[in-house]
Amino acid sequence: MNMKAILRLFLAWLGLAACARADEGMWLYNNAPRAQIKARYGFEVTDAWLDHLRLASVRFNSGGSGSFVSADGLAITNHHVGADALQKMSSEKNNYLRDGFYARTAAEEIKCVDLELNVLQSIEDVTARVNAAVPATATGDEAAAARRKITAEIERESREKTGLRSDVVTLYQGGQYHLYRFKRYTDIRLVFAPEQQIAFYGGDPDNFEYPRYDLDVCLFRVYENDQPVRPAHYLKWSPVGAQDGELVFVSGHPGRTSRLLTVAELEYLRDNSLPYTLMLLKRREVLLTAWGARHEENARRVRDALFSVQNYRKVRDGELAALQDPAVMDAKRTAEKAFQQKLAGPGGSADALAAYTKIAAATQEIGRYALRYRLLEGDRRNIFSAPQGLTSESFGIARTLLRAAEERAKPNGERLKEYADAKRESFELELFSDKPIYTDYEIISLADALAFLAEQLGYNDATVVKMLAGKSPRARAAELINGTQVRSVEFRRKLYAGGSDAVKTARDPMIELARLIDAEARGLRKTLETQDEIKQQAQGAIARARFALEGTSNYPDATFTLRLSYGAVRGYDEDGKFIPALTNFAGLYERSASQHNRPPFDLPPRWSERKAALNLATPFNFVSTCDIIGGNSGSPTVNRAGEFVGIIFDGNLQSLVGSFAYEDVYNRALSVHSAAIIESLRKIYDAPALADELLNGKR
Amino acid sequence: MNMKAILRLFLAWLGLAACARADEGMWLYNNAPRAQIKARYGFEVTDAWLDHLRLASVRFNSGGSGSFVSADGLAITNHHVGADALQKMSSEKNNYLRDGFYARTAAEEIKCVDLELNVLQSIEDVTARVNAAVPATATGDEAAAARRKITAEIERESREKTGLRSDVVTLYQGGQYHLYRFKRYTDIRLVFAPEQQIAFYGGDPDNFEYPRYDLDVCLFRVYENDQPVRPAHYLKWSPVGAQDGELVFVSGHPGRTSRLLTVAELEYLRDNSLPYTLMLLKRREVLLTAWGARHEENARRVRDALFSVQNYRKVRDGELAALQDPAVMDAKRTAEKAFQQKLAGPGGSADALAAYTKIAAATQEIGRYALRYRLLEGDRRNIFSAPQGLTSESFGIARTLLRAAEERAKPNGERLKEYADAKRESFELELFSDKPIYTDYEIISLADALAFLAEQLGYNDATVVKMLAGKSPRARAAELINGTQVRSVEFRRKLYAGGSDAVKTARDPMIELARLIDAEARGLRKTLETQDEIKQQAQGAIARARFALEGTSNYPDATFTLRLSYGAVRGYDEDGKFIPALTNFAGLYERSASQHNRPPFDLPPRWSERKAALNLATPFNFVSTCDIIGGNSGSPTVNRAGEFVGIIFDGNLQSLVGSFAYEDVYNRALSVHSAAIIESLRKIYDAPALADELLNGKR
Repeated sequence: MNMKAILRLFLAWLGLAACARADEGMWLYNNAPRAQIKARYGFEVTDAWLDHLRLASVRFNSGGSGSFVSADGLAITNHHVGADALQKMSSEKNNYLRDGFYARTAAEEIKCVDLELNVLQSIEDVTARVNAAVPATATGDEAAAARRKITAEIERESREKTGLRSDVVTLYQGGQYHLYRFKRYTDIRLVFAPEQQIAFYGGDPDNFEYPRYDLDVCLFRVYENDQPVRPAHYLKWSPVGAQDGELVFVSGHPGRTSRLLTVAELEYLRDNSLPYTLMLLKRREVLLTAWGARHEENARRVRDALFSVQNYRKVRDGELAALQDPAVMDAKRTAEKAFQQKLAGPGGSADALAAYTKIAAATQEIGRYALRYRLLEGDRRNIFSAPQGLTSESFGIARTLLRAAEERAKPNGERLKEYADAKRESFELELFSDKPIYTDYEIISLADALAFLAEQLGYNDATVVKMLAGKSPRARAAELINGTQVRSVEFRRKLYAGGSDAVKTARDPMIELARLIDAEARGLRKTLETQDEIKQQAQGAIARARFALEGTSNYPDATFTLRLSYGAVRGYDEDGKFIPALTNFAGLYERSASQHNRPPFDLPPRWSERKAALNLATPFNFVSTCDIIGGNSGSPTVNRAGEFVGIIFDGNLQSLVGSFAYEDVYNRALSVHSAAIIESLRKIYDAPALADELLNGKR
Repeated sequence: MNMKAILRLFLAWLGLAACARADEGMWLYNNAPRAQIKARYGFEVTDAWLDHLRLASVRFNSGGSGSFVSADGLAITNHHVGADALQKMSSEKNNYLRDGFYARTAAEEIKCVDLELNVLQSIEDVTARVNAAVPATATGDEAAAARRKITAEIERESREKTGLRSDVVTLYQGGQYHLYRFKRYTDIRLVFAPEQQIAFYGGDPDNFEYPRYDLDVCLFRVYENDQPVRPAHYLKWSPVGAQDGELVFVSGHPGRTSRLLTVAELEYLRDNSLPYTLMLLKRREVLLTAWGARHEENARRVRDALFSVQNYRKVRDGELAALQDPAVMDAKRTAEKAFQQKLAGPGGSADALAAYTKIAAATQEIGRYALRYRLLEGDRRNIFSAPQGLTSESFGIARTLLRAAEERAKPNGERLKEYADAKRESFELELFSDKPIYTDYEIISLADALAFLAEQLGYNDATVVKMLAGKSPRARAAELINGTQVRSVEFRRKLYAGGSDAVKTARDPMIELARLIDAEARGLRKTLETQDEIKQQAQGAIARARFALEGTSNYPDATFTLRLSYGAVRGYDEDGKFIPALTNFAGLYERSASQHNRPPFDLPPRWSERKAALNLATPFNFVSTCDIIGGNSGSPTVNRAGEFVGIIFDGNLQSLVGSFAYEDVYNRALSVHSAAIIESLRKIYDAPALADELLNGKR
């Protein structure tokens, strides 16, 4: 993004900060902004309309959104959401992620290794019950335990009663707790994927840019009992697709925003988390790029991981740039000060006012332990992922086996939350996944992580000394990866069934390494969870005060649960130039020619050969003012009639500030146009049956 | 490098640590290892032989080595040494760095923008004079000033007496000081360069690997008074080239080794310098790669810089891996302890023993200021390069203009050393270089550096606050780069001629920024130079004790001055497989086919088309046991007769430990074979005249 655009963006943003921001919000389905939509677009959102859209929306647990688009169980998402599944089903012989795939018959469809899809069935507010279980006098530590216990209890109770996956979700940073119940699907089969070259046309340089020409779609068929499911709700395909200027909606699962964070928390992000994360992402990007360049097969093995690293690098770079802009931070400071003045006034809350100090203190405390925590314990959101000092699939599995044995011996409510009974099915799906894990890749990954660990904590750190066992990071990584048996699914099943004794008897070197650091890692986690709990209680106090002062007609930060956004298909200005809302097929060929067809602007051979057959006026991608963020990838874009008119796949660079605030002058959500999908299925991919199924809503 | 190779390497290295290491050493020309060579290879090194090789050797001040190879002033070096010149003479229209170049006539030769070549004329030991000028009672601060003064005096005196470039060189970390006198050449014209694709065949993945197939050569013609120089000494071209097993010599300018560093200094490298440098290199690699991918012209603009960053990243990664290996550090500790015991014994030195403690303390002290120093003052070795918080050509020039005005007003001996009278000609060549500087590239580079600065020092740091002036890093970078006039050579000449007043009156925003931080930056430099002086004195004491105990028949660490190495053309074992010493043209085509000709293993079109014309048995690259390091790139490899048989262009991965120690079991130096140059000039590049000039030693 160039300088002028940034400056104007924030001037605009500052100007808007005072008034209501037009199409803002990732709204809860049980608190939809009916009045705003009615006022702004004259459209009446009904319960039936909402229920239909919700039940046609699908969550991809590999990290994205999607929707049912046929009565025969066809589900559509982005190619880059399907990428995880495509990578896992590929081999040296078949590089589906790079080359694409089309199953002409049901027999040709390929079952995904460990993909789980969720459809949201109901939402229940359990705030009162959760809060009642946490005594006001409890310390952070006790409160965290109490909250974990009641959460596990509610989830198990619901799971037993309904048979549905049941997750208690924290909203408004602790202001509310809602119970989300999902129908799970785990037999998911690949139907169609284009070449990554056209799905991600323009690659890293064009990522988060616009205009774009990406056919970022992937089609799966959902099965139950070996038969395609017949979803009661699926989206009808619009015969015309998105029109410039029209009202559209996005139904999907935005992953995480930080709009309600305090200034102290934003400063922590700016000064600590984001620079650290970016440093690590860039280190990893270089590692994977260099290793991938050595051989075609290496490149295939790291393909999805590298895409993911580059994507996050660009997102985090954009977020950090936003926080490094004094205009953004000043606006946040001004808003926080204004609200604190309200809190000090009539109808305010001394508790909420004090909460800011508590949050700042807890944030500081988290900062003290964050590095060791990241290196030795890792990300609580991705339970199977190894910590950053041990990056490898093998370590992630080894630690899970070790802990599963220990945790399952405890009462449900006292376990680490990922081992709770209600999560067991999804947990086992992942634990016993037989996705390919490559020894060579595991070794370079772990070697780099161990080197990073030693660099960060120092070679004389007692834990580092124990972990390296007198060897160089590279030698130690090779020894561990070559020595462990956890890459065998059979071995995992045996140990998981056998419990602690079986795990101990195995004397697996990777599991023993996990054991070696487990006390410290658990301790770090407990420390951070205690501080998180303190923050959550403080945020709860602020949220309650905000509800009291401003009502509950607002939306919480994103939590990878289903949300509704709305807005208009609308172009925008960049450097004094108007960027129209829609691109078309002709633009793709112009872009490629202007870049001399050099990668990543080269066309797949089929796209070069079949140009003449195409209607070049067909819309390709379009932008709208809908409020989205990562996790929304694959979300259906629908019109007033609830028809599928496109699919979200990206935001523009100006949308990256959206982690912290929404503005609708420059910030745009990018969708693939529904017509582009039909045109390419028919003219490029010789898949008329699939195009017909989409248009007709059945086979 | 795989694990086994590393482990075996260090086992070998440990075994060798006790006995004399065979072909070790980057020897001074005034202290050549005649006895060792005689004993090992039965070859008598004479004064005439040494003088001839020395006077035919050429230093490329852009950072490499080379040699005269024709009576008509032809000088050969590596393509990657010539890259700096190729980049600067390229434009959007002519990408010589990527596409290569051949001047069929003298008129077609292209003059380099700011290249300076040096030929070593004489060496004089001035240790006694330097030491006599530094009182034994002086503090680090006073000693540094005294040493700077005497150095400037010796250099100016020599410059005035001989007209030659005169540099006092610190050897043995302060054990000796020698005066090196060079003949300067500054009219250098490009004659031939191949495509980078074949010069750097295999790209980053094959860098520091073997077997290889790189035509890493570049030919320049050296002029004086608009006529080609007729060097009295140039290397005859061997009619057969390097033969497996034969004794060969390398004459070149190894840049820097760290073999005499103490364990405390090595730990500092391992724990501080190297991880920091690698973090920054990887950050920069991602920045340049991503920006270069956006457009072909961007890619051209960053081409040489990106190559350089990737190359250093691989070197530093290898060095860090070596220091992360306990085997290496343990061997260093053992050796240091053994020598300290000698020092404590008869004929030892209490001074030298105490020096270890002083070095450790000074290293600690340097560590305290290193970060600010790197960010605000930068690298003393590259005086024009901007510090790491301000990376941009524009800042480098702006600060040089500011300081030149201030320094030139002082007596010669009291100036910062780069402004000494003896260095003036080379300094002005660089200051007034009209190499292209691109505004867009300058902005992204400075924006990233300012962001890095703020991340490292914090947003509330007083200096950071002043520097950012209330703006985001990106906005501030754009403002500075767009506002400064220093990219105009005319502007630079005016300010340089006008002195302090002219500089002040200009009110150039970049110069004013340099002024804003100059007091702090100079202070940091003084602090570090004082500690360096303390270390230098301590190292001097150790060196003198070592001379007393072990004689002076050893070589000092590399200093980018001319050195002689020797060894044999010899293959080596890797993972139990013997790698023969020589590759040939057939191997190139096999390598390309086995990688499906995908980049960076693709062949330039000419190389595909003309395969049939080639004698595929012609040798391409070869390895030898010669002891080299970065800076040796472009060094001639010669046989007993002093004939040119190849040109150094790389080492294998196992050679990267060479920064700290030499071993000859796996460590190999890589050369382009002389026959490969002739074969490709004739059969691929239609340059028979040039091939004849090389073979005949004249046009």
